[in-house]
Formats: sequence, structure tokens, C-alpha cells
Amino acid sequence: MQLGFVSAILPDLSFEEIVQFASETGYDCIEIMCWPKGKAERRYAGVTHIDVTNFKPADAQRIKAILKGTGVSISSLGYYPNYLTPNAQEAKAVTAHFQKVIKASAMLGIGRATTFVGRDWTRSVDDNWPRFRKVWKPLIKLAEASKVRIGIENCPMLFTNDEWPGGKNLAHSPQVWRRMFKEFPSKYFGLNYDPSHLVWQHIDHVKPLWEFRDRIYHAHAKDVRLDQDRLDDVGILATPLQYHSPKLPGLGDVNWGRFFSVLGEIGYHGPVCVEVEDRAYEASLETRKAALRQSARYLRQYMP
Amino acid sequence: MQLGFVSAILPDLSFEEIVQFASETGYDCIEIMCWPKGKAERRYAGVTHIDVTNFKPADAQRIKAILKGTGVSISSLGYYPNYLTPNAQEAKAVTAHFQKVIKASAMLGIGRATTFVGRDWTRSVDDNWPRFRKVWKPLIKLAEASKVRIGIENCPMLFTNDEWPGGKNLAHSPQVWRRMFKEFPSKYFGLNYDPSHLVWQHIDHVKPLWEFRDRIYHAHAKDVRLDQDRLDDVGILATPLQYHSPKLPGLGDVNWGRFFSVLGEIGYHGPVCVEVEDRAYEASLETRKAALRQSARYLRQYMP
Amino acid sequence: MQLGFVSAILPDLSFEEIVQFASETGYDCIEIMCWPKGKAERRYAGVTHIDVTNFKPADAQRIKAILKGTGVSISSLGYYPNYLTPNAQEAKAVTAHFQKVIKASAMLGIGRATTFVGRDWTRSVDDNWPRFRKVWKPLIKLAEASKVRIGIENCPMLFTNDEWPGGKNLAHSPQVWRRMFKEFPSKYFGLNYDPSHLVWQHIDHVKPLWEFRDRIYHAHAKDVRLDQDRLDDVGILATPLQYHSPKLPGLGDVNWGRFFSVLGEIGYHGPVCVEVEDRAYEASLETRKAALRQSARYLRQYMP
Amino acid sequence: MQLGFVSAILPDLSFEEIVQFASETGYDCIEIMCWPKGKAERRYAGVTHIDVTNFKPADAQRIKAILKGTGVSISSLGYYPNYLTPNAQEAKAVTAHFQKVIKASAMLGIGRATTFVGRDWTRSVDDNWPRFRKVWKPLIKLAEASKVRIGIENCPMLFTNDEWPGGKNLAHSPQVWRRMFKEFPSKYFGLNYDPSHLVWQHIDHVKPLWEFRDRIYHAHAKDVRLDQDRLDDVGILATPLQYHSPKLPGLGDVNWGRFFSVLGEIGYHGPVCVEVEDRAYEASLETRKAALRQSARYLRQYMP
Amino acid sequence: MQLGFVSAILPDLSFEEIVQFASETGYDCIEIMCWPKGKAERRYAGVTHIDVTNFKPADAQRIKAILKGTGVSISSLGYYPNYLTPNAQEAKAVTAHFQKVIKASAMLGIGRATTFVGRDWTRSVDDNWPRFRKVWKPLIKLAEASKVRIGIENCPMLFTNDEWPGGKNLAHSPQVWRRMFKEFPSKYFGLNYDPSHLVWQHIDHVKPLWEFRDRIYHAHAKDVRLDQDRLDDVGILATPLQYHSPKLPGLGDVNWGRFFSVLGEIGYHGPVCVEVEDRAYEASLETRKAALRQSARYLRQYMP
Amino acid sequence: MQLGFVSAILPDLSFEEIVQFASETGYDCIEIMCWPKGKAERRYAGVTHIDVTNFKPADAQRIKAILKGTGVSISSLGYYPNYLTPNAQEAKAVTAHFQKVIKASAMLGIGRATTFVGRDWTRSVDDNWPRFRKVWKPLIKLAEASKVRIGIENCPMLFTNDEWPGGKNLAHSPQVWRRMFKEFPSKYFGLNYDPSHLVWQHIDHVKPLWEFRDRIYHAHAKDVRLDQDRLDDVGILATPLQYHSPKLPGLGDVNWGRFFSVLGEIGYHGPVCVEVEDRAYEASLETRKAALRQSARYLRQYMP
Repeated sequence: MQLGFVSAILPDLSFEEIVQFASETGYDCIEIMCWPKGKAERRYAGVTHIDVTNFKPADAQRIKAILKGTGVSISSLGYYPNYLTPNAQEAKAVTAHFQKVIKASAMLGIGRATTFVGRDWTRSVDDNWPRFRKVWKPLIKLAEASKVRIGIENCPMLFTNDEWPGGKNLAHSPQVWRRMFKEFPSKYFGLNYDPSHLVWQHIDHVKPLWEFRDRIYHAHAKDVRLDQDRLDDVGILATPLQYHSPKLPGLGDVNWGRFFSVLGEIGYHGPVCVEVEDRAYEASLETRKAALRQSARYLRQYMP
Repeated sequence: MQLGFVSAILPDLSFEEIVQFASETGYDCIEIMCWPKGKAERRYAGVTHIDVTNFKPADAQRIKAILKGTGVSISSLGYYPNYLTPNAQEAKAVTAHFQKVIKASAMLGIGRATTFVGRDWTRSVDDNWPRFRKVWKPLIKLAEASKVRIGIENCPMLFTNDEWPGGKNLAHSPQVWRRMFKEFPSKYFGLNYDPSHLVWQHIDHVKPLWEFRDRIYHAHAKDVRLDQDRLDDVGILATPLQYHSPKLPGLGDVNWGRFFSVLGEIGYHGPVCVEVEDRAYEASLETRKAALRQSARYLRQYMP
Repeated sequence: MQLGFVSAILPDLSFEEIVQFASETGYDCIEIMCWPKGKAERRYAGVTHIDVTNFKPADAQRIKAILKGTGVSISSLGYYPNYLTPNAQEAKAVTAHFQKVIKASAMLGIGRATTFVGRDWTRSVDDNWPRFRKVWKPLIKLAEASKVRIGIENCPMLFTNDEWPGGKNLAHSPQVWRRMFKEFPSKYFGLNYDPSHLVWQHIDHVKPLWEFRDRIYHAHAKDVRLDQDRLDDVGILATPLQYHSPKLPGLGDVNWGRFFSVLGEIGYHGPVCVEVEDRAYEASLETRKAALRQSARYLRQYMP
Repeated sequence: MQLGFVSAILPDLSFEEIVQFASETGYDCIEIMCWPKGKAERRYAGVTHIDVTNFKPADAQRIKAILKGTGVSISSLGYYPNYLTPNAQEAKAVTAHFQKVIKASAMLGIGRATTFVGRDWTRSVDDNWPRFRKVWKPLIKLAEASKVRIGIENCPMLFTNDEWPGGKNLAHSPQVWRRMFKEFPSKYFGLNYDPSHLVWQHIDHVKPLWEFRDRIYHAHAKDVRLDQDRLDDVGILATPLQYHSPKLPGLGDVNWGRFFSVLGEIGYHGPVCVEVEDRAYEASLETRKAALRQSARYLRQYMP
Repeated sequence: MQLGFVSAILPDLSFEEIVQFASETGYDCIEIMCWPKGKAERRYAGVTHIDVTNFKPADAQRIKAILKGTGVSISSLGYYPNYLTPNAQEAKAVTAHFQKVIKASAMLGIGRATTFVGRDWTRSVDDNWPRFRKVWKPLIKLAEASKVRIGIENCPMLFTNDEWPGGKNLAHSPQVWRRMFKEFPSKYFGLNYDPSHLVWQHIDHVKPLWEFRDRIYHAHAKDVRLDQDRLDDVGILATPLQYHSPKLPGLGDVNWGRFFSVLGEIGYHGPVCVEVEDRAYEASLETRKAALRQSARYLRQYMP
Repeated sequence: MQLGFVSAILPDLSFEEIVQFASETGYDCIEIMCWPKGKAERRYAGVTHIDVTNFKPADAQRIKAILKGTGVSISSLGYYPNYLTPNAQEAKAVTAHFQKVIKASAMLGIGRATTFVGRDWTRSVDDNWPRFRKVWKPLIKLAEASKVRIGIENCPMLFTNDEWPGGKNLAHSPQVWRRMFKEFPSKYFGLNYDPSHLVWQHIDHVKPLWEFRDRIYHAHAKDVRLDQDRLDDVGILATPLQYHSPKLPGLGDVNWGRFFSVLGEIGYHGPVCVEVEDRAYEASLETRKAALRQSARYLRQYMP
């Protein structure tokens, strides 16, 4: 396994600086954010550490040159928009951009792209399914052709009233994953497994590793703290941020020892990337860097 | 406290027969269903053991005569429609009917009416609020004038995709109750407390008794069994019947000893009515009667 | 479901007296022990409440006459020897006797016979398998022909050094049951499910009900108390009675509410028979009767 | 075992009436309060159902006559003052009265007397010891001579600031019991075991039964509910009623199934007497009687 | 947050040496003990790393010079006597000395002084209150004038019979803290929060952070191991060291991940100082230094 | 305490290389495997880092020279065969070899030898005892004469059907240890305590440290993960590897904080050696080295 981080937390640094920071801090890899340049639409989105819009072999050469000799690699190109948004124009644009992400990943020889499947959050899983099938068929074709494995993060993308009721990503539970992989059995379609989202959904966050062992292509190391006193007041029908908080690894309820224990046992040898979304560490670039240093110290006791 | 049951489970019996059954079985009281005559709209609804449509003093006399000497009383008149349904005509009709329920309760000298507050299930709690305020203001006025205390059951009325996402009753959590009672501080507006709905919402099902001790006007004794193995597959974003089952008291996860311990301690002296919605006991009238007998045996160890 | 008891605990009473006791105590049925007359080979064995050795239609008539009008029925004929004992002569004899049990059950119109599959306790499960296959093939054939469903109790029959290491009954875990039913898919071959034996094996004692819902033909209500302080001294490699004790229902670690909750949910409508093996109640006939009265009081809160 | 109750909860009834109530309610025995006539010094104290002050054979005959044929016996004569109070005059008086209790018990052929050892609550256990030794030596001598076994209840007698810091009874923990029985190994000196006091002391309330199996001469069935939310505010250094409440059996945290399971296993065949100190049931004689009826229903599921 | 340690564990080192050790070991700060020179009255007391008795600007300069460039700062000046001791002369002396501590803290620009409020351990909280109010009024005035925030450690100072029954510091529970801050709402009066003392008091050691978020001015990182087997023998009425042991962080029952998770979330940015009172590490200066090194390794996984 | 590792995991390195690796990785000591040269009989066995077959003072000198100045010492000479195997010739050979191990340990001034007691796995503990007594008497004599303390590892040596039913080492539980030390009270006969084997035996893995505090001469740091889902299928009568997996420290169910907390408290100052048997780290020499690095990082947070 390789320890990495998601570059979204360091939007103020350039690609070069991020690689440099990773190298100094003892990280093995980075999931690089590849949003199109422009204004972010939500917290942690809109970061562009590699611009894939007009990506050419020379760009790939430049990036490889920067990485060379640092001991740091790119675990994946990440882009997390909503392909199934009710806004048809937006849906078309983000789908087109993800195709560029896939192609850039191939050109860079990374072989992974990480994202969501999206969701029309006003509609049920069933009601989203026909559109999911239609939108994703060509994307998976492209992934196969490009030999790039797509890792779908299992975040429900449901936090506050803004995403109520359904959230902006269908892929939130083992039940849905099973249905997704039945729909598209392609080996280029899998998961970017993040245990933290399972915790607040009251799903065992380690058990699914056994069943989906062949579909885990990337992993996120984020934690969450569930506050039972708050849950006792609002219940699970409330919007999730009313009763839980995203935290650095070790500051929440994920059982990391058990997580890495089983992850190793199923033969996973890929990247595990720290995703920082802990508001207690967002004050400045320095505190965000400190968050990454602390996370590495914490996780290295469970990782080679 | 008095042990009772909700009459909805015995739709095939007349009022007289129900009273007779209660008396034989050792029940102290009954919550009598007062739906308008006609077709039920959902399971357990549409039962009419007292028809309040055109209720007159003579009707009240007849009912009192039936009860006399049986040792059985009526704990409340119950009617559980959706006053905030998007169907304006239906909303108007059910609201008008509830006014008749309140008046009948007053005429019978019961002093309690039990119901939901309703909800437009397609909209958030905030978005429902203005209409809630408008619809309930006159109902509470009537309750005050009639000296009938309204007990709102805390069932989210969310089971399957039919009620997704919001359910058909706003009053599902302590947070919402607090807001309701801030909106309407009237002493004629309170709760019909059912601990089982709190269990699957992952809310402590005993703790709220302390804060809302002055608002508990009626209580339901229903149980639910949470199946963690199923929850591990679907998570809390699934529709609730995918991971829990309504059960008879003692066959689920409610801690009845603790429930009655605190219920007694806060000075509650009112009715606790068994609500049978356990599919394992629905095969016949006889099995439904057996369910009520078993529930009484179980609960009497915790009640006077 | 019907509440019954295993007749082995009342060896000093005749069949008539047992039926009388059951009727007075509110039991619905009895599992009648049918050992061949003679000396018992171990505690709780060797009891003959119906002698099937030379069973004729007239015997069946006599038994039915005794039961008539008592409200008590026979849930099963029970006989629990070791068909796979290394002692070939004994194996032959007990197998022959079980055939008589099956035939008597058919003649009495009961349709159930309850037993173990046996085991050569000095050998592993795998090493026992060929003989299990050979011995049970004709027995299941006979059961099919007689339309008598065989319920195998899941007791490992391992208590002290006498049965070390393997115990005298192969059918001790879901893994083995699955293998048994793969070997013999006959609908006349199923389980006499006793949750208590799963408790000390550290197996969830309710979960298997879901998978084996179509194979549960009879059930035993026995409890066990696991003593962690003793287990902390000897560990699970010790003989089981060093760390647990058989107890009456309610005096051990079985979660009876959950057990009956799921038993009802899977549609089980058969007998549940109290099996008394609690040494604290063995002093006299009167204390053993008291054990059955207490068990009925305890279990009736969870049963119709 | 015999199910009984402590007569202190029914001060308004005469001895005859209490026996009558016990008989009707299905109780096997009663622990009879024998305070000297006069004003009670604290809640639940000062009750005189048998006046031992001037007890004569004729009194014993009268009492036996009342019991005859009722199926009810006296489990013990109870008197619970503070023999080690700093008030020397009071200490002398209560000690003298307990001698009368012992003698009356002998005359009635009961053979048990139940009480506390007392404590100067302003001083530590060590500082109380010399006086404990001195006061109890003659009492135990008398008990031996009278063949009356003394059962010391393990209540710390610490509730509010009135008994702060030490409480009015030394015998509160296994550590102290061991020291007591080392001091006085007499077989006429033992425990009146009440599991509830161990619960709020955070002592396993079943485990000590094993070590002290030969010293348990009487038992109380009382329950307590520990309120963790309150404990989280005040901690264990607060006076105990700030974080726990005495309750009827089944309405608190005692594990009654396990308690009776081990009680039976250690061979205890004596009385278990319900002690009602639950304020939710103190409103009237009728509610206190209801408390005893409910307690019997609850406990009979675990007792013969 | 800054990681520090309490200097009391290194009495054999001079101030310069301690700063040097902190710097080498990766500590950010030190809570410096400022007892008056002389003989220690109890374990861990009586250490003088800065002598404030006759503290002058030149002393402050000298200290600042030593710190300069080391990366180490002083988190607070600490002095932990009993201001409310029954010994009036001692009380007067220690109060006078704490005034010098406050003034020195101001002169050094530290702005924090850490201590206890004290207690007459033979009397109840209520009985101590008038004197607490009288003694602390002028101290808080001085703190305000000096702009030095006082952090009261929440140690009950109750270990063995020496401090029985009340301990030597009133500030032991959230209930008492609330009363203290109601008495003195000054923003210069707050807590030196140590989670370990809450553990053995059976108080949630993280929950109070939410309510007292504006009062936490300093924190101690000490752990305790609660031994349930011992508690099962002696109960919570025993002196606390009979059932728990102070330990290094990570070797006890404090949930450090959750502690730092909430500490960060409430916006705490101050010092967290390791307090070593673990007897297993007291053999020599070298083992005590090793304790501080180990504690830093352990805590850094949860801290920036 | 000293942190070490068991050399068996690095069979491809020479003694010099192992010492070098330990020194670089921050290990204080190594338990050196001393199997006779030749083919390994089972996984992790058969490793010879020091050949004691013909061990002479010059060999000792050479070894000491290699260690000199590295900061690394030898914690023990380890050899783990089965002295009680039914194969008499093998038993004789391995017993003879262990005598050489003891002598080499003495010559090297180490003073410890670590091993099993062995077991005829087809027979009960009782049946093995006479032979255990006979075989070990002379070995303990030799140990005493050589002043070498023998540490018996508490591994049951039961994994799969190969060692069924009894395993190849009697010393598996506190009950057996007590018996062993009663048999041989020699201070040269003690334990090589490995908490992981207690976990899957459902024995508290910390509690025995108190009782056996004077017998712990060496310790292994291995972890195991118990998989309840698998245990729910097979139960404790299955062979142990069906429901648990050996893992690196931190990746299993051992509570390391509590383990080291009590280990320190009982005054243990000896070696704690990481034993790597985690299949997820066995791919290559590099992954096995990584396992040792990770284990050191994990354990150092709990150790000086």
C-alpha cells in the first residue's frame, strides 16, 4: 500500500509545491484534483492541480519530470462533479470533462480516475437508474479503451439541506454498489473506498471489504465523529452534518487498525489517500499542512 | 398508568365486542379508532369503531352504557390522517373530520384526541412549517375550547418508497417537538409518545421523557427490531422497513423496564396502549387477539 | 407456535401423568422420550414414556385416547443415541430402534422424530462423513416413506472428558448443517433448533434462523449461562462444562425476545419445547415440576 | 427459594392484614419489621408489625396461629438501626432492642434476624473497626446461643448529605464483608444480600455470590436505576441519590435472570424478599400494594 | 495546540536543563512549577523551577533569554497548594505565594497561572463554599488586574485515607464548575482541564468540553487505568487509588482520539501538558525522561 | 522493557545482517532462532541464526563481537519443537537439542531460553501429564544448573486439522500454567507470554499478568483478528484458523495500551519481541522487513 493525500486541501500550492511537500512529509503518492479551471461550486471542489482541458504529451512529460526522483507518484486523477444533475447543460459539460480526465490519466500512465457517479438528489435511487445507465455506459467504454480503472467514491454527498433528500451520488451503500456492478461488470469500474461515509450511515465500515475485494481500486482515509448526544436530538432523518463531523484519521470513529488489517488481508496493494475535511484544521495553509503531517504520523502505525 | 390497546388491530370486531375482549383480557382501556367510514387508505388505517361524523349526545350515552361496569375506559379517540398532504381537498376533509373527533371526545368526557401533525412528504421540515402553523392554529384553539388534550404520535410515517423522502408526519424528533411546542405552547397540545419510532432513528428512546415530561398525554407500546446485518447492507439512507420490523412489546429493541421506570418517575399516570403492527401475528382475528394477550402478559411485569 | 416440554425430565411419571401435568400447567405439547426400556447410558437419557419396540395400532389408539380432550399433543417422538459410535453393535442396535421411532411417529400421526446424527467423537468431522452418509441414507429414505420429518438437535454432545474431543453429534454448527443439507436435500431432514448450544460455541444464536428457515422442524427452549471468569481461566479449548452451565429459560444468556421475534418472522409455527437440564432444579420430582412451571411463565411473555 | 416482601412498605396494615395480603398475592413469606413502637427516624424505618419489646411465648403462639394455613411464613425479623452511632445512649438502646429481636426470632422458630452493623458515618472504616468488634461480639454470642442466624444487609446507608461521607452501615463491599467474617467466623453471622446497592457502587452484583455462598442467609429484591447523564454531571463523589433511584425489580439495572441463575447454582434455598422503596409507587396504600403485586409478577419468571 | 509537559516530574533538573530537554524531545512548551523553595509536602509537590518569591524584571529577562531560540515557551506557572486548608496559617501563606505566581506570570508575559481552588477535606462542598468565595474574590481581582487567566485543575485531590473524605480541591465535577463560574463569572477564572480525573469519577471525560468551551485555559494530558476487578471488590466508596492507577497517555482509559477531536472542534488553541504520575516510570531520572519521550510519541498522532 | 523481534521471520538473512537490521530499525534486542540445521517441519520453524549444535566459547566470542557497539542484544535463544510428540525418536532428538540451546544461552550470558512444553496432540492434558513431568524434570534441572530461565510460550499450537484436537503445546491457559508451576516450582521455569493466543481462546489477555507476574520471563508481541462473522458460522469447536488470523501488532484485537499498562505495573523489565506471522506481509524479504518497521512504530507509542 502507498500512503497519499488528496490534493484538494492545498489549493494554494502549485503541482510542483505539492509534490515537494509530499516528498518532505513522507507521503508516497497524491490524488491530484483536475477540476476545470474556474470558480469552485462547493467546499473542497474546483481545485486544479493538473489542467486536463487541453492535455498533450508534452504536458505529461513535464509532470513526469517533476515527479522524477521525488519518490512520489500520482495515485489517481480526481474529479468529483455530478453527472446526473437535473441541469442538463451542466451534466453534459462535466461528463465531457471527465472524458478528458480519463484520457490524461492514460497519457500519464496512472491508470486510475476517481469520481462520483452523481445523482439527481430530488429523486429516488430507482428513479435515477435509467439515466445512470445511459450516462455511464460510454464513460466505462472509454475507460476500458484507455485501460484506466474508475474508482467511484462511496460518499452520499448529503450534508445539509442543499443536497436533501437524496444527496448527489448514488453510490452510497453496499446494496447500491452490488447493483452498479451487476449493471456494469466491467473490470474498469470499481470503488474509491472511504470508510468514513459508512460510519454515519451505521454500516459496518470494514465488512464490505470482503465482498468487494476485487472492486477496490483506490481508498480514502478520512474519519468522522458521530455525536450520539446530537443524534439523540435530531435522529437519522436529519441532514447528516447535524450529528456528525468529518475529522482527521484517528480523531473519529473509524477503526483504522481493523480497516488496514482486512485491507491487507484481501490483498489490496493500492493507494490510501488522506482526505482532509476537518474544519478544525482549515484556518491557514500551515494548519492544513499540519493536518497532513499529523495524519501521516497516525496512519503509518498501521501501514508499511 | 392504565394498560390499553389501539383498536385498529381488530377492525372485524364491533365496539361492543372490543370492549368485551378488553375486559376479558385484563386491559384497562382502549384507544378507539375514529376514521370516517369508507375505504382505508393504508394498512392499519380506515378503522371506525366509533363514527364521529354525526355524533350526538345520545351516541355518547350509548357508548358510556356499553363501557359501564366493564372496568374498561376509552383512553383517547384516535385518527391519524395527513393534514398537510399536498392534496388540498383531502387536507380540508381530514381537518374537518378531526374537529369532529375533538368534539366527540369532549362529549364522551374523554379529554384526549390522538393523531399526527401531518407533512407534505416531498418537502423539508422548514418548508412545511408555515402550513403547519396555519393548519394547526384553529385545531388547537378548538382543543382548548373543548378541553381536549391532543396527543401527537411521534411516528415519522416513513416506511417505503411511498412516503419517501420526508414521511407523512413532521413530529419525528425531540428537535421538532421542541419547535412545535415553542410554536404552540398551549397545554392542550402534546405528545402520544411511542418509543419504538425513536429506536430505528437511533435516538435514545427514554431520555426525551425527562425534557417532555409535561407534554406526554398518551403513550403507545410498540416495539421494533433493528436488523444490523440488513442495515450494514443498505444504511440509514434506505427506506426504514429495509432494516427494521415493527414487533410486539418484548420482541424488539425497546428497553421496557427502563421506559416504565422513567415514565413512572416523571409522574405519568395516563394510558399506555399496545399498538400491534407485527406481521407475524396478522394471519387471523385469533392471532391478532393472541398478540394482544401476549403483549398484556409481557407489559404487566413492568406496570401496576 | 406451541409451548411444550421434553419428557426426559420427568422419568418418574407415566405417560398419562405427564399429559395430565402438561394440561394443568398450560403446556400445549410434549416431546415424548422413546428410549428402549433398560438402563440409561447418560444423564437425561434412557427415558421411555412411549415404548416403540413393538408398537401396534392398538398402542397408538390408547395414546390418542389419553390425549383426547386434554388440549395437549405430542410434538415429536424423541430418541437421542449415537448412530456413529465406534461400537458397531451399539450403532446397529440404536439405528434399528430409531426406525421404530419413525414408524411409531407415523402411526401416531405426529409426523416428527427428533434425534442426533451421532459422531465418532475421536475423529474429525471430515473423517466421520463417509459413515454419516452411509448410515443416514436409509434412515432418510424411511422418513420420506413414512412422511415423518426428522429434526436433528444441534447439540455438540461435548461436556466433559468423556466426550472429548469431538462430542457425539456432528450437527453442531451452521457450517455443518449446510453440509448435511447439501448431502441430503430431502425435505424430511431438518433441525431441532436449540439456541443454547450456539451461545457457548460463540455463535450468534438467532442469525442462523434466517438461512435455515425452511429446515426448522422442532425447537428446544434451553438456556445456558456462560461464566467469563471461568472462561478466563480455562479458555475455549477446555471441556465446555468448565465454563458454562445449562439453565432454565431466562436464567442464561439466550436473548429470548429476539429469538421468538425472528422465529415468528420466518413463519415458524411449530413446537418449542422446554428442555430442563438445570442442576439447581434436579433435587426432586417437585423441583423438576417447578422448573417446568417457571419456564412456562417465563416463555409465555414471548409466545402466543 | 421463597418469594417474600419486607413489611416496612405497609405500615398502615396490621400483622394479620399483611399476612392476608401476602397470601392473596402469592407471596410465600414476609420479613417482619420489629422497630420499637414510636416515631420513625427515617423513611421506611420505625415500622412495628411485631412488637418484640416484651415478647412472650403467648405472643409467639398468637403469631403462629395467624400464619397457620395461610401458606405464608416469616422469613426473618428485621430491625435496621445504627448500633455504632456516635450517640452513645441511642447506640445502647438500639443494641438492647436487637437482643430482643434475636430472642423473639428464636421463640418464633424463625432462626433469622436481619439488620445492619451500623457505622459512625463521620469516620473511616478503619476508625470504626474497634467499636464494631466490641459491639458485635456479644450480639453474635447471643445469636449463637439462640441459634438465630444474623443477616447483615449490604446497604451503605448513604443517600444524601445527612449520611455523608461514610453512611450508616459498614457492610457495603465484598472487601468489608471478608474482613467482617474474618473477625467473626461464626456461622451465625452472615449477609442479607441486596444486589441493588452493589449496582450504584459499580460492583458486579452477581460475582460475590460465589465467594460468599456460605454466608447468604437472606436476600432482598430491590432494583436501582443508574442515570449516567446525571452521573456525568456530578460524579461518584456526589451523594448517591444524585445519580441513582431505587426502583421495583425489573425497573432498574439489576440483571435478575443472572442473579437468580447463580443464586440457584450456589445452592441457596432461602427467602428473597421484595423491598419497595420506589417513590413512583408511594402515593397511597393501594399503589404500594400494586408495587408488591407487580414485583411478584416480575420475579416469578425467574423463581420457582 | 501546543504539546508540553508539567515540570514537576523533573525536580532534579534546573530550568535551563528542562528547557533543553523539551527542545530536544520535540515539546513546544512547559508548565513550570513555582512552589516556594523548601520541603515538598506530598508526592509531585514542592518543585521550584522558577522561584517567584522575590521575582524582579531582571529575573524575567534571564528566563526569556534562556527560552529564546529554543522553540520552547512557558505554558503557565503552576502551583497547587490548598488555599482552604483548616490550617489558617498555611492557608494565608499559600494564598500570598499564589499572588506572587500571578504577578510573575504577568511579568513574564505568559498570562496563565494554574492551580487548585482547595478544600477543607473534612467538610462538604456546601460547607466549604463561603470560605471559597471569600478566599478567591481577591485572587480573581488580582488576576484581572494582571491580565493572567487562572486555570483550575479539576483533580479531586482524593487518593487515600489522607485526604478522605472530600479531597483537597472542590473543583471536581461539571456541577461544581458551573457553580464556581456562576459565583465568579470573570473571564480570568477558568479550568486546567484534565480528562483523567473524570474517568475514575465515572463522568464522561469529553462531553464537558462542549459546555465549558469558553473556560478551558490549559489542559493536562494524564491517563488512568480503572481496574474493574478491584472496583468489584471495594466499590466507589473506597479511596480512589484502591481501584485506579495514574498512567502515561495511552496506557489508560482516556479516549485520546475523541478528546483531541472535540478539543479541536471547540476551537481550543492552547497548551496540552503531559503530567507524569505513573509509578512504573519513576525509578530514575532516565525513566522519567523516557516517560516524557513516550508520551510525546503517543500524543503527536492526535495533535498537530 | 526492550523492544525486540523474533528472528524466524528473516530466514534469508545471516545473524550479522539481522543484528544490522535491528540496529538500523531501532530495535533493542532479538530472540534468535536456534533450530538444528536442516529442513523446516512447519511454517516459521527450522530457522537457524545461531547453530548451537557444536557450540564453543569461540562461537560465543564471535557472536558477542558482532553485537558489540550495535545497541542490540539477544533477548533469548528460541527453539520451539514438540518434546512430547508420539514419535519417540523425534522426542529424544529435540530434547537433546534443547539442552544445547540452554548451554549456549549460558555461554553467551543471555540467561534465557524460549520454547514450548510440547504435547501429544491426540491426548488430553491429563493424559499428557505423566510424560510432561518425566521429560521436563531433567530439562529444568539443567536450566537451574546453567542459570538459564526457560520461558514457555503459551501458544496452543492448534491451527488446522494437522494439530487437531489438542495442539502441540500443553501450556495454553492460566489453569494449565498454574498446574505446571505447581509441578515445577523452580524459578528457572516460567512463561514467554504472548497475549494474542489468549484472545482467540476468549481468555482475558491482560488479567493473567497479575497472577503470573513472577513467572513472566519473556514476551511476544503478536496480534490476532477474530472474525465474528466466521465464528458465527463455524463456532469454537472448529479449528482456530477458520475464525481468526495472526496479525501485526495494532491490526488485531489485542489491547496494547492496557497490556503495556499492566506489564509495567507488575514490574516487568524484560524483552517484548515482535513475532511476525501475518500472511499479508510475507510476500518478500522487503515486506517482512516492512512488517518489522511498522510494528516498531506501532509499539513504541506504548513503550519507553
